[in-house]
Amino acid sequence: MAAASPLIEALMEALRVLPGVGPRSARRMAYHLLERDREGGRRLAQVLREAMERVGRCEACRTLTEEPRCRLCAGSGRDRSVLCVVETPADVEAIEAAGVYRGLYFVLMGRLSPLDGIGPRELGLDRLEARLRGGEVREVILATNPTVEGEATAHYIAEMARAAGVRATRIACGVPLGGDLEYLDAGTLSHALAGRREVADEE
Amino acid sequence: MAAASPLIEALMEALRVLPGVGPRSARRMAYHLLERDREGGRRLAQVLREAMERVGRCEACRTLTEEPRCRLCAGSGRDRSVLCVVETPADVEAIEAAGVYRGLYFVLMGRLSPLDGIGPRELGLDRLEARLRGGEVREVILATNPTVEGEATAHYIAEMARAAGVRATRIACGVPLGGDLEYLDAGTLSHALAGRREVADEE
Repeated sequence: MAAASPLIEALMEALRVLPGVGPRSARRMAYHLLERDREGGRRLAQVLREAMERVGRCEACRTLTEEPRCRLCAGSGRDRSVLCVVETPADVEAIEAAGVYRGLYFVLMGRLSPLDGIGPRELGLDRLEARLRGGEVREVILATNPTVEGEATAHYIAEMARAAGVRATRIACGVPLGGDLEYLDAGTLSHALAGRREVADEE
Repeated sequence: MAAASPLIEALMEALRVLPGVGPRSARRMAYHLLERDREGGRRLAQVLREAMERVGRCEACRTLTEEPRCRLCAGSGRDRSVLCVVETPADVEAIEAAGVYRGLYFVLMGRLSPLDGIGPRELGLDRLEARLRGGEVREVILATNPTVEGEATAHYIAEMARAAGVRATRIACGVPLGGDLEYLDAGTLSHALAGRREVADEE
């Protein structure tokens, strides 16, 4: 299938760095831009270059941002006594979209995974520890994913919080709203059972 | 969901010019590049910019290429007496992948569609006519898609070829190899029946 010119072939190849894009989608994307949307293609090239060069990490919470501090850390509208620890910037977006959390975040950009060479240092846990010992934070909410590595990471940070005299809580694991017990995995179900709570009398 | 920084939001927005990419895929792509493949993202930005600026049309066959003439038209290995007319560069790739055609192409970059303002001029049919009258082409193979507009386009070019004294043929329409009659549409089936051929005696 090398009937396209070298530059068009190179474009199809380059598009495949995008997750979920195989040879067929890459061809479709390349021809779509070349035949029908050069302006959109130029804009994408420009924004992409700029983002790859300028986006770094927030010096306070480690999330991705082009500023020294992200909007949440730099702003004044949030409760600085609660810190929610998540694995990725996408997790921050998901929690923000829920619209119920008013504290700050700390973004690990990963999870503890010794086999992959990811230890406390790579996740910036030294900085998190300094923050927990700083006296401003009263509660740290551990919102890493409920996977083996996410649980291990939560456990590690909980120990750290305890040593610093900060309350550590873990987000609840259980049946998702609208979920169907019949199709849930055994792990989620056993978490849901273990985490059961008294039904309060309605008065 | 505007928890990301302005530049990251702009990147997600820009990625949506790609066909088949909605808000969720765009977010996944943006974070993938930012967190794990800056080098790939930089390369994509560079190749994309270059392709959008430099890719034009082959002066002989109108296909997309960054050279004045595409590789097939510029080369000497093809039969210049046969011209296959297709709608898009992707069609050229598909026919080349089949590996059985040795002639040249003429790429319309569209099909006749008066309601959308696409007439003979927009498809470069004046240039095709000059080529047919040039004396080099003996046969023109009409390989536009078997849609209403594709058929109308093929018909129009067939008339042009006739006037120029060039033989015009149309690719066969029928049951695809490995296809299942049960699931074929009525139009394809009626074409397959109308286009039936005598079974030759094997000797």
